[in-house]
Order: sequence, then structure tokens, then C-alpha cells
Amino acid sequence: MKQPVRIAVTGAAGNISYSLLFKIAAGEMLGPDQPVILQLLEVPQAMDKLRGVAMELEDCAFPLVHGISLHDNPFDCFKGVHYAMLVGARPRSKGMERSDLLEANAVIFAEQGKALNDVANRDVKALVVGNPANTNCLILSRNAPDLSPTQFCAMTRLDHNRAQGILANKLGINPGDIEGVCIWGNHSPTMYPDLHHAQILGDEAAIDMVDEQWYKEEYTPRIQKRGAEIIEWRGFSSAASAAQASLDHMRDWALGSDGRIVSMGVISDGSYGVAKGIYYSFPAICDFGGYQIIQNLYINDYGQAMMKKTEAELLEEKAAVEHLLPKETAASHEAQSTSSRTEATYYQADRIC
Amino acid sequence: MKQPVRIAVTGAAGNISYSLLFKIAAGEMLGPDQPVILQLLEVPQAMDKLRGVAMELEDCAFPLVHGISLHDNPFDCFKGVHYAMLVGARPRSKGMERSDLLEANAVIFAEQGKALNDVANRDVKALVVGNPANTNCLILSRNAPDLSPTQFCAMTRLDHNRAQGILANKLGINPGDIEGVCIWGNHSPTMYPDLHHAQILGDEAAIDMVDEQWYKEEYTPRIQKRGAEIIEWRGFSSAASAAQASLDHMRDWALGSDGRIVSMGVISDGSYGVAKGIYYSFPAICDFGGYQIIQNLYINDYGQAMMKKTEAELLEEKAAVEHLLPKETAASHEAQSTSSRTEATYYQADRIC
Repeated sequence: MKQPVRIAVTGAAGNISYSLLFKIAAGEMLGPDQPVILQLLEVPQAMDKLRGVAMELEDCAFPLVHGISLHDNPFDCFKGVHYAMLVGARPRSKGMERSDLLEANAVIFAEQGKALNDVANRDVKALVVGNPANTNCLILSRNAPDLSPTQFCAMTRLDHNRAQGILANKLGINPGDIEGVCIWGNHSPTMYPDLHHAQILGDEAAIDMVDEQWYKEEYTPRIQKRGAEIIEWRGFSSAASAAQASLDHMRDWALGSDGRIVSMGVISDGSYGVAKGIYYSFPAICDFGGYQIIQNLYINDYGQAMMKKTEAELLEEKAAVEHLLPKETAASHEAQSTSSRTEATYYQADRIC
Repeated sequence: MKQPVRIAVTGAAGNISYSLLFKIAAGEMLGPDQPVILQLLEVPQAMDKLRGVAMELEDCAFPLVHGISLHDNPFDCFKGVHYAMLVGARPRSKGMERSDLLEANAVIFAEQGKALNDVANRDVKALVVGNPANTNCLILSRNAPDLSPTQFCAMTRLDHNRAQGILANKLGINPGDIEGVCIWGNHSPTMYPDLHHAQILGDEAAIDMVDEQWYKEEYTPRIQKRGAEIIEWRGFSSAASAAQASLDHMRDWALGSDGRIVSMGVISDGSYGVAKGIYYSFPAICDFGGYQIIQNLYINDYGQAMMKKTEAELLEEKAAVEHLLPKETAASHEAQSTSSRTEATYYQADRIC
């Protein structure tokens, strides 16, 4: 039996986590032979609800779950974690300006970055799901100077999966037969869903199977605004599909993408002329616990314009929070272990194993 | 590649199904090599919400999902299905008497029984999750005279998993190391959670590891009323744990329980002196696509009294709906294919595979 790994999930009493946790616990993320310890974070006012979620996890008698702990403080929650799924974020409330939203989240992710820096496992992989994911990820990473920026990702896998699933439905084929769809840029309506490198069953170019007008005027805006379409029909924002995408992202990052191209919001290294130092979604392949940006794809003029537009948005977002970012040559910072009302271990099931 | 199997899920836009569908689609129920076609049923007023759920399934690009169809009529929904997960039921509304609840559900499950009888695959396995599950299952089965009563089950796996998980947490051991917990009787507060045959790691009797008073006065009522405890903490009724239990039940029934004892509400054959013709939860082992009630367990006086009490409740429930049940020597009945506003295929992904 493998040693358990520690997985932190934030916003753990929210709707995305409610779908995610029961999939992690069943072994869907790290496999059926990998025990897990779940370290769950919520705001103090959601701790009762979180306890209810932990009770339901207990009620599933998952053999892989070797422990559950409940926290309202990231410095406790993130202790020794190998994986951090940062789902919780401040949602936009009525009358809130975009800059207010960025700032409110900057406070949350700055603290969580410091906490990861101080107490997480040195090989931690952190995935930001909470929006605005790319800029939240930037703040997180910049507040964790002892960790590599490549240990942080922003989730664009939901957009990637949507691009793949919606194309499959359009063509009446299995999504698994499509390879090479990718998302560039920001997880926002400026993202660029790119079909130019996608193939069907390894030989037919996807872009040749669709009408250009449909691709640019129907498909692209549909992927960009799919979240709103889901809300319109379901009456609630995407939760189960977001959970599945976060699981897919972390599974592939941890265990490898098996040669398949995935989309990940990662620190730009200047590939494709994208400004360094922002978290930008690139096509990538995962192996050996890391990722590599796919190089040398031909980008046509349309694609270059799309990529520039979403890059510009990310640079604007960065500028809006710049005053809150630590200097890049980060000095050490003081650990802020302001434990308030942390819950102790809820569930402990690894004494015999 | 295996041929896809057809899985019907009712109440498909509800909270339990929202957890269940994304697990089935990921292969958690029937394995990573079994394609599925999801045939989803809802009431007409929930069809928009159901479409939103189907869109989120599409957004996951699940390779195993070869089709999704949306229905508001069981005679369309159940066509050719190999598995039916009957999650939807009429909940108890304010001021509703228990007999009203039984009758309201009798109407729903009578129609669904007729539909399964007429249009499902002849080897269909149907699991009733919607409450009152045992008596709903009885009505379902009695309305499907061409199918065997052994093709129907009421879910008590949630109670079984709770009994296992809560005992594991109490003892600080892994739930997977506990074997032989079982639930007798009705999925209601009269159920009897029995630890007398349970073992820890195959050699230590579970009943010897717990205090008798704790077992009878704390543990037993806690399992019986766990649903209310979850609502109290989480603010919502159990959904993810109910979904997981229904998946566990169907997986074990279809693929075998690997020698492990599970609890299933099945048609009583008179085992342990339980009245024939009611759906009563027994300990069972699953293999070769069927189940066998475990025989010859020693039941002490306490256990016998508990088993009688829950049997009496089931006989009362049966009496309350007796006037709605077809005769046991069922004559043929007319198919009621009253198609109203059935949605066509939403998603079709098996042209190439």
C-alpha cells in the first residue's frame, strides 16, 4: 500500500468542491491505489456546512480516505500538502467593480501563497480554480518565493474540455477521438479556443471539418461564454464540470497526460512571444510530474491577434494588482500563523493500513 | 471496445443525480472500458434544468459517454435500458400525511414499472433510490409482471456505508478493514444496523470492540437518523453520499461484490422468517450479475426483535398501498405510451468508436 498523500481543497463546502471531493475520495484523481488525506479549508461561517460534507464523506466508507481535517486557516490547512486545489474565491457581488474583485481576491490568494510557501510539501502542486484564476494564480505564486512558479497553475482545462466536448457533439464523434484542441490565454471571455492543431483520430484536421464562419462566430464565442449558457439553462453556475476539469488537470499533471495535449494556465516563459511573468494558458504535455509547453506550433494571423488580445487582458489584470504584489526578487516574509478557530482532525482512518 | 450499455436515471436534474451522473460518466460504476448511453428522465417543468446538466456532461468530454437523451416520459426513457437508477420520487411536502406520500409515489412507480416491463432490456437491473424506497420498489416490481422480482432492488447501501464509515471513525481504522456490517429491513428509522457478524481485518469481532450501550443507544439511532443529522449540519439532505451508495450498489450487483457482504433491499424469499413479497434489506453477496442472501447467520433475541419491528413497518406500508397494487398473478396490462414533449437525443458520440 502506498503512503497517503495530503490534498488541500479550499472553498471545500462550496458547490464545485461538493462534486470534487467525492471523486478524489473514490480514487478518480490519483488512482485506486493511492490513499489520500483531505485537508479542507473554509471561511469560519461555513464550518458547520463543511462538517456536514465531511460527515457525508465518512458515510461513503471510502477505503482510500485515510483522514479528513477541517480548517479555517490556510497555515494549518496546507501543512505538508502535496496537492492544493484552490477552489474558493470571492465571487463578484452586485455593484462590485472588476478592480474591487481583483483586490478582494488578491488578499485571499496572497495569504494562501504565503501559507503554501511556509508549510506545504516542497514539491506541492497548486491549481487555482477560483476566479479570476490566472491573476489569482499570479498573486499566489508571487507570495510563495521559496516555491517555483512552475508549481502553480490556473485552470483552463474546463475551457479545453468544453472545446473538445462541444466539437465532438457537433461532429457526432467521440470526444476521445479528438486530439490537440487547445485554449490560449486567460480563463475569461477573451480566451482563444484553437482548433488549428486538432486532429480527428490522428489523421483528419479538425479545422477542415468545420465551417470557418461557424468556428469564428458560433463556436468560439460559445466556448468563451459557456459559463453563462450553463447558468441560463441549469439555473446555477457550472459545478460538476468544473470539478471534473480540476480533477483532470491535477491527474494529468501528477500522473502524466499520456502523450495527449492539454491546456494549462502556466507561468509564461516567453513562448510564442507571450509576455513573461503572467499565468497564460498554453497547450502542454505532462510527464514525470511536470509539464512542457508545446513549441513551434504555427499560429496564423487570426490566432496571433486572438492571442495578443487575451495577453493584453492579463497584463491589465496584473497592472491592477501590481501594487499588491511582492517584489519579484522576493525577500523572506514573516509567517502569519493567525490560527483562530481551526477544527481538529475530523476523521482518522490510517491507524491500521 | 465493448458495446455501450444503456443506463436510465430518473430525477436526473436533482441533487443526487447531479453527483451520480458525473461518476457514471467517468466510469466509476461499470469500469473504465464500458461505454454508456445515458437516458435521463425528469418532470416536464425540469427539462430546461436537465438540459443544463446534459450540457455540463458534454463539457467534460467523457470518452465513455456515447450518447445522452432527455425524456419526460418513462416509456421513452426506459427503451432498451440495461440499468435503471430510479432516483426521482415525490418528496414529502408540508402537511402531507404518510399515506398521501405513499400514494403519490405509488402512482409514479406504477407507471415506471409498466414502462420497464414494456420497453427495458429483458435483463434490466432496477435500483430504487427515491423514498420510501422499499415500498416504491414493491410497486415498481408488481407493475412489471414480465420481469423477475429479483431484477429490482431498494437501496439500503447508504445505510450500510454509513454503518461501516461511522464504525471505522469510532475505532480509528480504515473502513476497508471492516467486513460484514449489514442493514436489515426498511430504509427508514426502523432499520436494524447489525454489527454481530462484522469482523475487523478478518479476525476480530467488531461487536467485541464496542460498548453494548454505545452500540444500542448511540450508534444504532445515529445510523437510523443519519439523514436528519446531515441536514442539520450541511443544511441540505444527503446527495453525494446517496449518489455514491447507489453507484456502489449497482457496481457490485453488475460486476460482483468480490466476496464482500453488502446490504440490499431485495424481494423477501422467506429467509430468516421475513414475510415473503416485501422488499427487505438483507446481507447479500453479488456474483455473476445476481445476488444471494447470506444464509444461516445467528440472530440473537435483540436482533430478532429489531428485524420484526422493521418488517412490521414494511407490511404496514404494503397494506397502505395494497389497493393500488396489481394482482400478484398479473394479467397483461396495456402499454401507456403517452408521449408528451419528449426531448430528442441531446448528444450522440458513438458514430466513430
